Amino acid sequence: MVNYQSCHLDGIFAALSDPTRRAMLRHLSSGERTVGELAAPFDMSFAAAAKHVKVLEEAGMLRRRIEGRSHRCRINAGPLATANRWLAYYERFWSMRLDDLENALVRHAGKRKRK
Amino acid sequence: MVNYQSCHLDGIFAALSDPTRRAMLRHLSSGERTVGELAAPFDMSFAAAAKHVKVLEEAGMLRRRIEGRSHRCRINAGPLATANRWLAYYERFWSMRLDDLENALVRHAGKRKRK
Repeated sequence: MVNYQSCHLDGIFAALSDPTRRAMLRHLSSGERTVGELAAPFDMSFAAAAKHVKVLEEAGMLRRRIEGRSHRCRINAGPLATANRWLAYYERFWSMRLDDLENALVRHAGKRKRK
Repeated sequence: MVNYQSCHLDGIFAALSDPTRRAMLRHLSSGERTVGELAAPFDMSFAAAAKHVKVLEEAGMLRRRIEGRSHRCRINAGPLATANRWLAYYERFWSMRLDDLENALVRHAGKRKRK
Protein backbone atom coordinates (compact mmCIF):
# COMPACT_ATOMS: atom_id res chain seq x y z
CA MET A 1 0.00 0.00 0.00
CA VAL A 2 2.90 2.34 0.77
CA ASN A 3 4.71 3.39 -2.40
CA TYR A 4 7.05 6.21 -3.39
CA GLN A 5 4.23 8.57 -4.32
CA SER A 6 2.47 7.86 -1.04
CA CYS A 7 5.63 8.48 1.06
CA HIS A 8 6.16 11.67 -0.87
CA LEU A 9 2.61 12.82 -0.06
CA ASP A 10 3.19 12.04 3.64
CA GLY A 11 6.10 14.49 3.69
CA ILE A 12 4.33 17.11 1.58
CA PHE A 13 1.17 17.24 3.71
CA ALA A 14 3.18 17.04 6.97
CA ALA A 15 5.31 19.98 5.83
CA LEU A 16 2.16 21.98 5.04
CA SER A 17 0.56 21.23 8.42
CA ASP A 18 2.56 23.92 10.19
CA PRO A 19 1.64 27.65 10.02
CA THR A 20 5.29 28.80 10.14
CA ARG A 21 6.18 26.65 7.15
CA ARG A 22 3.11 27.82 5.22
CA ALA A 23 4.07 31.44 5.98
CA MET A 24 7.63 30.76 4.79
CA LEU A 25 6.30 29.38 1.50
CA ARG A 26 4.14 32.47 1.09
CA HIS A 27 7.24 34.60 1.72
CA LEU A 28 9.18 32.63 -0.92
CA SER A 29 6.36 33.14 -3.41
CA SER A 30 7.56 36.71 -3.94
CA GLY A 31 11.18 35.70 -4.60
CA GLU A 32 14.39 34.18 -3.33
CA ARG A 33 15.15 34.64 0.41
CA THR A 34 18.04 33.79 2.71
CA VAL A 35 17.34 31.52 5.68
CA GLY A 36 17.82 34.62 7.89
CA GLU A 37 15.18 36.55 5.94
CA LEU A 38 12.79 33.60 6.18
CA ALA A 39 13.39 33.35 9.95
CA ALA A 40 13.06 37.10 10.68
CA PRO A 41 9.25 37.46 11.00
CA PHE A 42 8.96 34.66 13.56
CA ASP A 43 9.31 34.81 17.30
CA MET A 44 11.62 31.80 17.48
CA SER A 45 15.35 31.05 17.50
CA PHE A 46 17.25 30.97 14.24
CA ALA A 47 17.87 27.24 14.84
CA ALA A 48 14.13 26.57 15.17
CA ALA A 49 13.39 28.52 11.97
CA ALA A 50 16.22 26.71 10.17
CA LYS A 51 14.59 23.39 11.13
CA HIS A 52 11.35 24.51 9.45
CA VAL A 53 13.35 25.43 6.34
CA LYS A 54 14.91 21.94 6.44
CA VAL A 55 11.46 20.29 6.59
CA LEU A 56 10.33 22.27 3.53
CA GLU A 57 13.56 21.30 1.77
CA GLU A 58 13.14 17.61 2.59
CA ALA A 59 9.57 17.71 1.28
CA GLY A 60 11.02 19.13 -1.95
CA MET A 61 9.20 22.49 -1.78
CA LEU A 62 12.29 24.57 -1.20
CA ARG A 63 15.57 24.57 -3.07
CA ARG A 64 18.68 26.02 -1.44
CA ARG A 65 21.87 27.32 -3.03
CA ILE A 66 24.88 28.31 -1.00
CA GLU A 67 26.45 31.65 -1.88
CA GLY A 68 29.46 32.38 0.32
CA ARG A 69 28.08 32.27 3.85
CA SER A 70 24.42 32.73 2.98
CA HIS A 71 21.94 30.03 2.04
CA ARG A 72 19.58 31.38 -0.58
CA CYS A 73 16.21 29.62 -0.82
CA ARG A 74 13.59 29.52 -3.53
CA ILE A 75 10.24 27.83 -3.89
CA ASN A 76 9.93 24.60 -5.85
CA ALA A 77 6.28 24.08 -6.73
CA GLY A 78 6.42 20.46 -7.91
CA PRO A 79 5.31 18.94 -4.58
CA LEU A 80 2.52 21.53 -4.28
CA ALA A 81 1.28 20.42 -7.70
CA THR A 82 1.44 16.79 -6.49
CA ALA A 83 -0.73 17.68 -3.47
CA ASN A 84 -3.10 19.57 -5.76
CA ARG A 85 -3.45 16.56 -8.07
CA TRP A 86 -4.22 14.33 -5.08
CA LEU A 87 -6.94 16.74 -3.92
CA ALA A 88 -8.38 17.10 -7.44
CA TYR A 89 -9.83 13.58 -7.18
CA TYR A 90 -12.22 14.89 -4.51
CA GLU A 91 -13.25 17.99 -6.42
CA ARG A 92 -16.52 16.37 -7.53
CA PHE A 93 -17.58 16.26 -3.86
CA TRP A 94 -17.29 19.95 -3.25
CA SER A 95 -18.59 20.73 -6.76
CA MET A 96 -21.62 18.56 -5.97
CA ARG A 97 -22.17 20.52 -2.78
CA LEU A 98 -22.14 23.78 -4.79
CA ASP A 99 -24.50 22.26 -7.37
CA ASP A 100 -26.85 21.21 -4.57
CA LEU A 101 -26.73 24.74 -3.15
CA GLU A 102 -27.39 26.28 -6.56
CA ASN A 103 -30.34 23.95 -7.18
CA ALA A 104 -31.75 24.76 -3.74
CA LEU A 105 -31.43 28.51 -4.43
CA VAL A 106 -33.13 28.13 -7.84
CA ARG A 107 -36.00 26.18 -6.24
CA HIS A 108 -36.29 28.77 -3.47
CA ALA A 109 -36.36 31.63 -6.03
CA GLY A 110 -39.05 29.77 -8.02
CA LYS A 111 -41.25 29.40 -4.93
CA ARG A 112 -40.91 33.11 -4.08
CA LYS A 113 -41.96 34.06 -7.64
CA ARG A 114 -45.08 31.90 -7.48
CA LYS A 115 -46.21 33.50 -4.18
CA MET B 1 -0.37 35.11 12.76
CA VAL B 2 -2.31 32.07 13.96
CA ASN B 3 -6.01 32.42 13.21
CA TYR B 4 -9.00 30.10 12.90
CA GLN B 5 -8.41 29.40 9.22
CA SER B 6 -4.74 28.68 9.90
CA CYS B 7 -5.50 26.25 12.78
CA HIS B 8 -8.03 24.57 10.54
CA LEU B 9 -5.39 24.12 7.82
CA ASP B 10 -2.97 22.64 10.40
CA GLY B 11 -5.48 19.90 11.17
CA ILE B 12 -6.46 19.34 7.54
CA PHE B 13 -2.90 18.91 6.26
CA ALA B 14 -1.87 16.84 9.32
CA ALA B 15 -4.85 14.52 8.73
CA LEU B 16 -3.82 14.12 5.08
CA SER B 17 -0.18 13.34 5.95
CA ASP B 18 -0.95 9.71 6.78
CA PRO B 19 -1.40 7.02 4.07
CA THR B 20 -4.03 5.09 6.10
CA ARG B 21 -6.18 8.20 6.44
CA ARG B 22 -5.81 9.04 2.75
CA ALA B 23 -6.81 5.47 1.88
CA MET B 24 -9.85 5.75 4.19
CA LEU B 25 -10.93 8.95 2.42
CA ARG B 26 -10.59 7.19 -0.92
CA HIS B 27 -12.74 4.36 0.44
CA LEU B 28 -15.37 6.86 1.59
CA SER B 29 -15.38 8.48 -1.84
CA SER B 30 -17.45 5.56 -3.13
CA GLY B 31 -20.06 5.84 -0.36
CA GLU B 32 -20.92 5.57 3.31
CA ARG B 33 -18.89 3.04 5.36
CA THR B 34 -18.98 1.77 8.94
CA VAL B 35 -15.85 2.21 11.06
CA GLY B 36 -15.39 -1.58 10.80
CA GLU B 37 -15.50 -1.45 6.99
CA LEU B 38 -12.99 1.41 6.97
CA ALA B 39 -10.68 -0.51 9.31
CA ALA B 40 -10.90 -3.86 7.45
CA PRO B 41 -8.24 -3.37 4.74
CA PHE B 42 -5.54 -2.38 7.22
CA ASP B 43 -3.17 -4.57 9.15
CA MET B 44 -3.82 -2.81 12.46
CA SER B 45 -6.07 -3.16 15.49
CA PHE B 46 -9.62 -1.85 15.32
CA ALA B 47 -8.65 0.69 18.02
CA ALA B 48 -5.77 2.01 15.89
CA ALA B 49 -8.03 2.30 12.83
CA ALA B 50 -10.71 4.02 14.93
CA LYS B 51 -8.11 6.61 15.98
CA HIS B 52 -7.44 7.41 12.32
CA VAL B 53 -11.19 7.81 11.78
CA LYS B 54 -11.27 10.18 14.76
CA VAL B 55 -8.46 12.31 13.27
CA LEU B 56 -10.37 12.61 9.98
CA GLU B 57 -13.50 13.51 11.93
CA GLU B 58 -11.71 16.17 13.98
CA ALA B 59 -10.30 17.69 10.78
CA GLY B 60 -13.90 17.89 9.52
CA MET B 61 -13.41 15.53 6.55
CA LEU B 62 -15.59 12.75 7.91
CA ARG B 63 -19.09 12.90 9.33
CA ARG B 64 -20.36 10.09 11.53
CA ARG B 65 -23.93 9.07 12.33
CA ILE B 66 -24.74 6.43 14.90
CA GLU B 67 -27.26 3.81 13.82
CA GLY B 68 -27.87 1.29 16.56
CA ARG B 69 -24.47 -0.16 17.34
CA SER B 70 -22.76 0.86 14.12
CA HIS B 71 -21.08 4.17 13.36
CA ARG B 72 -21.70 5.07 9.74
CA CYS B 73 -19.20 7.46 8.18
CA ARG B 74 -19.34 9.63 5.11
CA ILE B 75 -16.94 12.05 3.47
CA ASN B 76 -17.30 15.79 4.02
CA ALA B 77 -15.38 17.58 1.31
CA GLY B 78 -15.39 21.13 2.76
CA PRO B 79 -11.92 20.87 4.34
CA LEU B 80 -10.50 19.31 1.15
CA ALA B 81 -11.83 22.33 -0.75
CA THR B 82 -10.15 24.60 1.85
CA ALA B 83 -6.81 22.83 1.28
CA ASN B 84 -7.32 23.10 -2.47
CA ARG B 85 -7.98 26.85 -2.22
CA TRP B 86 -4.79 27.29 -0.18
CA LEU B 87 -2.77 25.40 -2.82
CA ALA B 88 -4.39 27.32 -5.69
CA TYR B 89 -2.36 30.41 -4.73
CA TYR B 90 0.77 28.54 -5.85
CA GLU B 91 -0.67 27.28 -9.12
CA ARG B 92 1.12 30.01 -11.10
CA PHE B 93 4.44 28.44 -10.04
CA TRP B 94 3.75 25.05 -11.51
CA SER B 95 1.94 26.58 -14.50
CA MET B 96 5.05 28.68 -15.13
CA ARG B 97 7.17 25.55 -15.04
CA LEU B 98 4.92 23.98 -17.70
CA ASP B 99 5.07 27.18 -19.79
CA ASP B 100 8.89 27.14 -19.54
CA LEU B 101 8.91 23.51 -20.64
CA GLU B 102 6.56 24.26 -23.56
CA ASN B 103 8.70 27.22 -24.67
CA ALA B 104 11.86 25.09 -24.44
CA LEU B 105 10.21 22.37 -26.55
CA VAL B 106 9.06 24.90 -29.15
CA ARG B 107 12.59 26.37 -29.36
CA HIS B 108 14.07 22.88 -29.62
CA ALA B 109 11.61 21.95 -32.40
CA GLY B 110 12.51 25.21 -34.22
CA LYS B 111 16.22 24.40 -34.08
CA ARG B 112 15.66 20.86 -35.41
CA LYS B 113 13.65 22.25 -38.35
CA ARG B 114 16.38 24.71 -39.32
CA LYS B 115 19.04 21.95 -39.35
